Amino acid sequence: MDVVDVIRAKRDIGVLTGAQIDWVIDAYTRGVVAEEQMSALLMAIFFRGMTAQELNSWTAAMIASGERMDFGALSRPTTDKHSTGGVGDKITLPLTPTVAACGAAVPQLSGRGLGHTGGTLDKLESIPGWRATLTNDEMLQQLRDVGGVICAAGDGLAPADRKLYALRDVTATVESVPLIASSIMSKKIAEGTSALVLDVKVGTGAFMKDVAQAHELAETMVELGIASGVKTAALLTDMDTPLGRTAGNALEVAEALEVLAGGGPADVVELTVTLAREMLRACGLGTAKDPADALRDGSAMDVWRRMIRAQGGDPDADLPRAAHTCVVSAPSSGRVVRLDALAIGTAAWRLGAGRARKEDAVSFGAGVEMHAKPGDVVRAGGPLLTLHADDEERFARAIAALEGGYEIAAAETPFTPRPLVIDTVGA
Amino acid sequence: MDVVDVIRAKRDIGVLTGAQIDWVIDAYTRGVVAEEQMSALLMAIFFRGMTAQELNSWTAAMIASGERMDFGALSRPTTDKHSTGGVGDKITLPLTPTVAACGAAVPQLSGRGLGHTGGTLDKLESIPGWRATLTNDEMLQQLRDVGGVICAAGDGLAPADRKLYALRDVTATVESVPLIASSIMSKKIAEGTSALVLDVKVGTGAFMKDVAQAHELAETMVELGIASGVKTAALLTDMDTPLGRTAGNALEVAEALEVLAGGGPADVVELTVTLAREMLRACGLGTAKDPADALRDGSAMDVWRRMIRAQGGDPDADLPRAAHTCVVSAPSSGRVVRLDALAIGTAAWRLGAGRARKEDAVSFGAGVEMHAKPGDVVRAGGPLLTLHADDEERFARAIAALEGGYEIAAAETPFTPRPLVIDTVGA
Repeated sequence: MDVVDVIRAKRDIGVLTGAQIDWVIDAYTRGVVAEEQMSALLMAIFFRGMTAQELNSWTAAMIASGERMDFGALSRPTTDKHSTGGVGDKITLPLTPTVAACGAAVPQLSGRGLGHTGGTLDKLESIPGWRATLTNDEMLQQLRDVGGVICAAGDGLAPADRKLYALRDVTATVESVPLIASSIMSKKIAEGTSALVLDVKVGTGAFMKDVAQAHELAETMVELGIASGVKTAALLTDMDTPLGRTAGNALEVAEALEVLAGGGPADVVELTVTLAREMLRACGLGTAKDPADALRDGSAMDVWRRMIRAQGGDPDADLPRAAHTCVVSAPSSGRVVRLDALAIGTAAWRLGAGRARKEDAVSFGAGVEMHAKPGDVVRAGGPLLTLHADDEERFARAIAALEGGYEIAAAETPFTPRPLVIDTVGA
Repeated sequence: MDVVDVIRAKRDIGVLTGAQIDWVIDAYTRGVVAEEQMSALLMAIFFRGMTAQELNSWTAAMIASGERMDFGALSRPTTDKHSTGGVGDKITLPLTPTVAACGAAVPQLSGRGLGHTGGTLDKLESIPGWRATLTNDEMLQQLRDVGGVICAAGDGLAPADRKLYALRDVTATVESVPLIASSIMSKKIAEGTSALVLDVKVGTGAFMKDVAQAHELAETMVELGIASGVKTAALLTDMDTPLGRTAGNALEVAEALEVLAGGGPADVVELTVTLAREMLRACGLGTAKDPADALRDGSAMDVWRRMIRAQGGDPDADLPRAAHTCVVSAPSSGRVVRLDALAIGTAAWRLGAGRARKEDAVSFGAGVEMHAKPGDVVRAGGPLLTLHADDEERFARAIAALEGGYEIAAAETPFTPRPLVIDTVGA
C-alpha cells in the first residue's frame, strides 16, 4: 500500500477502507509512514471527518498498536470514568474509592496536566510517598485487594495514540471530533474496562466551548465504546465555572478529603454521586449500595486510605502548602454572577500548579482558593480568592489572568445557576 | 509568531496575512517550521484555497527565499516559455532558437523528467558533449552571444519551492491550483524574464485532465505573473494525443531537428510557431521577424547549432540509438481515431526514456515512434508504432501499457481533430 494514495483517497473520496486504516496506523507506529505524511492525513481528516465505520476501524487499529489489558479474572465488574478536562476537576479522587466502596472494580488510568487544566496524577503526587507508576500485576493485585486504583497509563497502551497526540499538538490538528474521540476511547478500551462513563466538559474552561460540539463528541465516543463492547454513557457537564472551591494540586486533594469525609462543596458532591451512579449502572451494579451512602458512612474514605497506602502514600501526612498567599478582595458588594473557569485555571497555572511543557515540574501547594462562587453574596473588601504560590513574583501574572474573570452584580439580582449536568447521552 | 496559530488560522479563518505568509515561508526554508507542520498547512491550503492577495504574498515569499536573476543589462528583451508537461513535448528545443532568431533573448531554465512526461534536459543530454549546468555568468554571456540558452535552474532560485515541491510529492498536496501556480511562477519570476508564455497542457497525458481546471490554473498564473511585473500569457493546448511522432530523448531531438530544418510534424511546427509569436508579442517584438520565416530560412537552425556548441555539444554528432526495436502492428485496417498520450508516455517511460525516481538514469535511445496519428488511415498488419529500448525485456511491459491506448475505426469514419490550441488566457 502507498501512503500517498491513502492520503489522496481521504482528501478526494473522503472515506478510507478498513484495510487502508489498519495499514496506515501500523506503518505510522513503526515509523514507515513519516510524520509529515501523517500530519497531512490528519488535516484531511479534520476537513473530511470520518464515518462511524472508519472511526471504529481507526480506533481498533490504535488499540491494536499496543497491549490490551484484561480484567476478566476479577470477581467484580470493572467500570471507569474519563473527563475531557476542566478547572478544579478533582472528581476522580473521591469518585474512584466511592464506586469501589459500592462493589465495582475501578481501574482509573490517568494523566498529568498540561496548560490550564489540572492532571489527576499531579494532584495525587502531592501526597507524600504516593507513586503513580504500577506494573500491570501490581494494578491487578490492587484492584483485587482494594477495588480501586488510580495510576499512570503504561507506555504499552495504544502507542499509536501517543505518537498521534504529540503530532496533532504541533500541527493544529487537535480540534477534530473523530480524532479526539478515537484518542480518548482507544486508551480507555485498551485499558480493559467493561463499562465507562464519560464526563464531557462544556464551557469557557473546557476544550469544548459549546453544547452542540460537546454533544457530537459525546455521541461519537458513546457509539465507539458500544461498538467495542464497552458499556458506555456520557454526561455533558458545566465548565463555565470551576468545580468546587479549589484549583491546584494539594488544595484539591484537601477538598476531595472533605467530600470523602461526608462534607465538601455541593457541586463536587453532586457530580461525584451522579457519575458514581452512572458508573455502577453501566457495570450492572445499579441496584447495589448508593454512592451517597458510601460517602456518608465512611466506606468511601476507607477505600481511599487503602488506595493511597497501597501506592506508598501516607493518608495522614500533612499536605504541602505554598510559602506565600495573596488575597484578592471583592471590589464591590453584591452577588457574584460569574466566576470564569478559564481565568481561574490560567491563574492557578501561572501560580505554579500547572505546566507549560510536558517536562516541567508542578508546585504541589500552588493554586487558587475560591471564597465565593456564583450565587454567593460578597461585601466590598471581603475576601474573594486566595492565591497560593511558592514564589511571590507569580502573583502579578496570576492577578492579570483574573482580570475580567469574575462579575459582581447588585445583591438583589436574580441568579439562576446553570445546571451542573447539562445533558446525558446513552445512559 | 507561532506556526500552530498560523496553521489554525488557515484552517479556520481561511486567509493568512502577508506577515504570516512571509514568516512561515522563511521559517520553513530555515528549518524552524518542521516538515510535518508545513504539510498540515499545505493540506489546509488544499481545502481552503488562497485569495489572489495571499497567492501574491506566498509567491513573493518563495522568490525572496533565494536569488533573483536580472537580465536588465542585455540589449534584447527577455521572453520565456513554461510547459506544464506532456508526452512528446519537445517544443522547447525548436522554440528557443526560433525566438532568439527573431530578436529576443530566451533564458530557458528547464528540468528533468519524472514519471511519464519527459524532461527537456534529458532530451538535450542525448547530444554528445552537451552540458546542462551553467554558471549565472556563463548563462548571461550565452544570452548576449547567441540569444538563447536552455540550462538547468540553479539551486539558488526559490529554494523554498524546492523544499515544498519535495514535501508535496510525498504528502498528497500536489493537486492544488495555488500551490502549483506559485511553484511554477516563483521559479519563472526569480529567473528574471520580462515576458512569459505558459503552455498549460490539458488531457489524458497532462497533469490537468479537464479544461475548466486548466483554465483556472492558467488564469491564476497569468494574474500572478502580471502582479509581479512579468508580461504573462497562457495557451491551453491539447494533451490527449502525444505531440509529434516521437516520445523519448534522442528520438525527440531528431524530430526537433526536422522542425528546425523546415520540416517536421505539423502539430509540432504549429505549436512552435504559435508559442513563438506569443513570446515575441509579450516582449514587444510582435512586429519583428515571423517565427515561421526563421524556421524556413535556416536562421533558427543556425541559433540552435550555436546554442549546442556553446554548451559543449556537437550538433553534427550521431544521436544515440537504442539497441533493440519492436514494431507494434495495426490489428485492423481503418482510421486511427485515438492515440492516448498517457499510454504512449507510460510506454516510453517503461522502455527506459523516463525515470521513476529522481536519482535514476534515463536511456537516451529509448522511446516510441508513432507511424500513425489520429486521423491517419492504417492497414491491418502495417506498422503502428516502433518501440526502442536498450533491453529487450522492457518491451512486454511497454506493450501492456499500450493496451486500450489506441483505437482504429472504419476508414470512412468522419474524424475531426481536437484543436491543438484550445484556449488563450491574457494574450
